[in-house]
Amino acid sequence: MTRYALTLEFDGSPFMGLQRQAHGPSVQQSVEDAVHAITGETAIMHAAGRTDAGVHALAMRAHVEIEKPFTPFRLMEAINAKLRPDPIAVIACEEVPDDWHARFSCIGRAYIYRIVNRRAPLTLERGKAWQVAKPLDAQAMHRAAQFLVGRHDFTTFRSAHCQAQSPLKTLDRLDVRREGEHVLIEAEARSFLHHQVRSMVGCLAMVGMGRWREEQVREALEARDRQALGLNAPPDGLYFVRAVYSGE
Amino acid sequence: MTRYALTLEFDGSPFMGLQRQAHGPSVQQSVEDAVHAITGETAIMHAAGRTDAGVHALAMRAHVEIEKPFTPFRLMEAINAKLRPDPIAVIACEEVPDDWHARFSCIGRAYIYRIVNRRAPLTLERGKAWQVAKPLDAQAMHRAAQFLVGRHDFTTFRSAHCQAQSPLKTLDRLDVRREGEHVLIEAEARSFLHHQVRSMVGCLAMVGMGRWREEQVREALEARDRQALGLNAPPDGLYFVRAVYSGE
Repeated sequence: MTRYALTLEFDGSPFMGLQRQAHGPSVQQSVEDAVHAITGETAIMHAAGRTDAGVHALAMRAHVEIEKPFTPFRLMEAINAKLRPDPIAVIACEEVPDDWHARFSCIGRAYIYRIVNRRAPLTLERGKAWQVAKPLDAQAMHRAAQFLVGRHDFTTFRSAHCQAQSPLKTLDRLDVRREGEHVLIEAEARSFLHHQVRSMVGCLAMVGMGRWREEQVREALEARDRQALGLNAPPDGLYFVRAVYSGE
Repeated sequence: MTRYALTLEFDGSPFMGLQRQAHGPSVQQSVEDAVHAITGETAIMHAAGRTDAGVHALAMRAHVEIEKPFTPFRLMEAINAKLRPDPIAVIACEEVPDDWHARFSCIGRAYIYRIVNRRAPLTLERGKAWQVAKPLDAQAMHRAAQFLVGRHDFTTFRSAHCQAQSPLKTLDRLDVRREGEHVLIEAEARSFLHHQVRSMVGCLAMVGMGRWREEQVREALEARDRQALGLNAPPDGLYFVRAVYSGE
């Protein structure tokens, strides 16, 4: 058996999420089906993150173990050929040691969230960003974001379906910046709770719209209560951008 | 009657083109239908460019004349509301004098063409860029592009369906640059022939792939013969980005 690390780019729109679901298409199922079509083997795909329905990835890391011999390049080409027409692409592939695990060896994860801040509806970016009509103060959002950086109990920013044992997480970075009509939010941590990025973005948007004072983000955090959440941002604007491994 | 200039953004994928067609959806029909729904009036939309099926726009300029009184802001909002779910948005609207014509007053047009230069198929950019698997030499493409800048007979780069009276056009700018895996081509002229940008991009791609010498672009131009065309690039990567009017 050889273990291959895959770097995946995908449009999350048609999927119920990254992880295999009983009742709908998933990124995991598409990749596993492609591997099966090529090798006849039933490989399980493990990924660095378990993104939700509608969430995208520019560079998700994952791994599969395969008996049949392949060069990484030929495996990548073969999987991509079988993945058509699903909007998933293997953009890199390499052999890794048997103890390298896409999920458990991952020591850092990064997301970017894209808001289009304008009144006009989305056209080219439909499903790929969150349209917010009310003008956003990105600088106020950035200042409010700093209340969330550090080690905290993120219960307020956690979905009811979150499976993590503890709501304690260390948020390493949460930066907000404006680029024209786009407001971009970058988040980095060792790991995130379920819905954490979207929940944080929702509260920052409340600040940006002037419906919350900046300090209300800190108050929401300290409440440790899902009811204190201002708004959960839609999945459309969320992209998994980076998984970090020691030695890379 | 008041004349309004509209700035349109659209995803060209579902349309047979900007101009009204007998047998399929068009950007013109969608906008005219929206105006009719709001005003009961049968307005004709005139646009700066007549983009093909699958070609996109970031800022197409157009105009309509309407009897019913509106502020430009309210007209924009009303058209956008009626355009849903078509991927067209009015991103700016203003009153203009009766002699301002979106097409005939336009003195400059700019397009950008997006190539994704990689082996992996497109996911998030599917329908929004041209995927070229073979590595492209963007610097060679840029050098070859300079043969086309200036006043020339562009017969080689003109569709058989082109309605322009003369194949003589002055190309003001044709720049090629690489940004990561993207190769971006920017074209500016007072006006273009039908398929001119896609035809020029196709020939530059031949140079980028090493299948043509740089000078073959000049030879193709001088042939003044459609048969000398190397390749017509697909519409997916083409965006109308700017229309220029005197005094703006």
